[in-house]
Amino acid sequence: MKILVIGGTGTLGKAVAREFTGEHEVITAGKTQGDFQVDITDENSVKALFKSTGKVDAIIATTGSLHFGPLTEMTAEQFNTGLQNKLLGQVRIALIGQSFLNDGGSVTLTSGIIADEPIRQGANATTVNAAVEGFVRGAAIELPRGIRINVVSPTVVEESLKAYGPFFPGFEAAPAARVAKAYRRSVEGAQTGRVYKVW
Amino acid sequence: MKILVIGGTGTLGKAVAREFTGEHEVITAGKTQGDFQVDITDENSVKALFKSTGKVDAIIATTGSLHFGPLTEMTAEQFNTGLQNKLLGQVRIALIGQSFLNDGGSVTLTSGIIADEPIRQGANATTVNAAVEGFVRGAAIELPRGIRINVVSPTVVEESLKAYGPFFPGFEAAPAARVAKAYRRSVEGAQTGRVYKVW
Ligand SMILES: NC(=O)c1ccc[n+]([C@@H]2O[C@H](COP(=O)([O-])OP(=O)(O)OC[C@H]3O[C@@H](n4cnc5c(N)ncnc54)[C@H](OP(=O)(O)O)[C@@H]3O)[C@@H](O)[C@H]2O)c1
Ligand SMILES: NC(=O)c1ccc[n+]([C@@H]2O[C@H](COP(=O)([O-])OP(=O)(O)OC[C@H]3O[C@@H](n4cnc5c(N)ncnc54)[C@H](OP(=O)(O)O)[C@@H]3O)[C@@H](O)[C@H]2O)c1
Repeated sequence: MKILVIGGTGTLGKAVAREFTGEHEVITAGKTQGDFQVDITDENSVKALFKSTGKVDAIIATTGSLHFGPLTEMTAEQFNTGLQNKLLGQVRIALIGQSFLNDGGSVTLTSGIIADEPIRQGANATTVNAAVEGFVRGAAIELPRGIRINVVSPTVVEESLKAYGPFFPGFEAAPAARVAKAYRRSVEGAQTGRVYKVW
Repeated sequence: MKILVIGGTGTLGKAVAREFTGEHEVITAGKTQGDFQVDITDENSVKALFKSTGKVDAIIATTGSLHFGPLTEMTAEQFNTGLQNKLLGQVRIALIGQSFLNDGGSVTLTSGIIADEPIRQGANATTVNAAVEGFVRGAAIELPRGIRINVVSPTVVEESLKAYGPFFPGFEAAPAARVAKAYRRSVEGAQTGRVYKVW
């Protein structure tokens, strides 16, 4: 299979790319690194990426940023940054990418444990992660040509504990390599519209 | 209680306003009708609304539009209209409104059955409704002064069957007056972070 990992140069994405390397042809895209550069918030940039890669068998997105901050001070403008980046960015990848998938191909997006388990300063993250899971549920029933779509919901990743640990008191972390297995279940499995929780 | 119903001039909102009228002081806001006019997509308009109403005990939103259309033709730009209107519009009401709520007050938003039960052409609706429910889950743990936040998820409303019926094959409809009771559970109950499903 030819597998495109957008965000394949990040903490999670590197582990996902490694999971498939050797058995499959893996192409990575990042904002500044990777085989291709792309900005998921820019329509033309995502179109250009797929024109460069050509048809693929699997599209994986392990990217997208959110707004973190206290709810009592949060503005709609700040909230919108997470909507435009992690939510609409991943939706854009799926909407444009569907035409570049071979029959029976798949899209796998990324949400996160905060969808179900809110944390302080995380209202935007809970919203966006729940929205990505909703999109996958909604899109799964309409995708043509046997194309599937799923989402992986990771707990906080061990490699990220230094940066995010204090936000997740008592949460069990998982190594990125373990989370990466869920992306393989999505890509090589037969299900669609699923949330693969790694927590 | 002083209760503000934004969207209180619509199919659902009229029934919600009626549910509280007599027992409580009900103020309605709509885009063109109602006691006050407001555009939920406009930050200054929502701020002006709350400056006009002053402090309230409950804020209810029964408003917000979505993009409906086939997934295979959907663009990110079309998708964003639902994010900006029903999702960010309701989030904006909550973010700005929190400062205008008396202690122990409440916010009640509106999602819909498509959050859990996708329909054709409804990927944006499933996403946005799931996102609104996520926001309520996330915001509930951070609201100060005993302020609560919940969301009502109505099935298709009987009064709307003429317009939307064909999109909901086999779905059981509910009269708007029955859906309105869930808003009362939210406003007069003690729970927070809840999704009240009327289906
Ligand atoms: N880390 C965790 O503990 C954790 C847990 C749950 C969920 N998640 C989710 O998993 C995803 C990845 O997280 P991560 O920790 O691996 O992030 P990360 O290490 O910061 O990596 C981000 C990746 O996305 C790329 N990127 C950044 N902005 C982009 C843009 N505008 N357009 C295209 N690509 C862009 C980066 O490219 P360059 O390297 O080229 O800049 C990099 O490949 C996020 O959605 C996050 O919310 C993470
Ligand atoms: N109807 C259903 O079967 C059903 C089922 C499940 C969920 N819902 C959800 O319930 C909500 C209300 O639906 P509905 O059928 O009652 O809608 P509706 O009859 O079209 O009423 C819409 C209401 O929102 C107001 N409005 C429209 N645009 C606005 C804006 N930009 N800013 C502020 N207010 C605005 C309208 O004001 P004016 O009257 O002044 O124009 C009206 O009060 C929607 O979120 C819908 O998705 C509806």
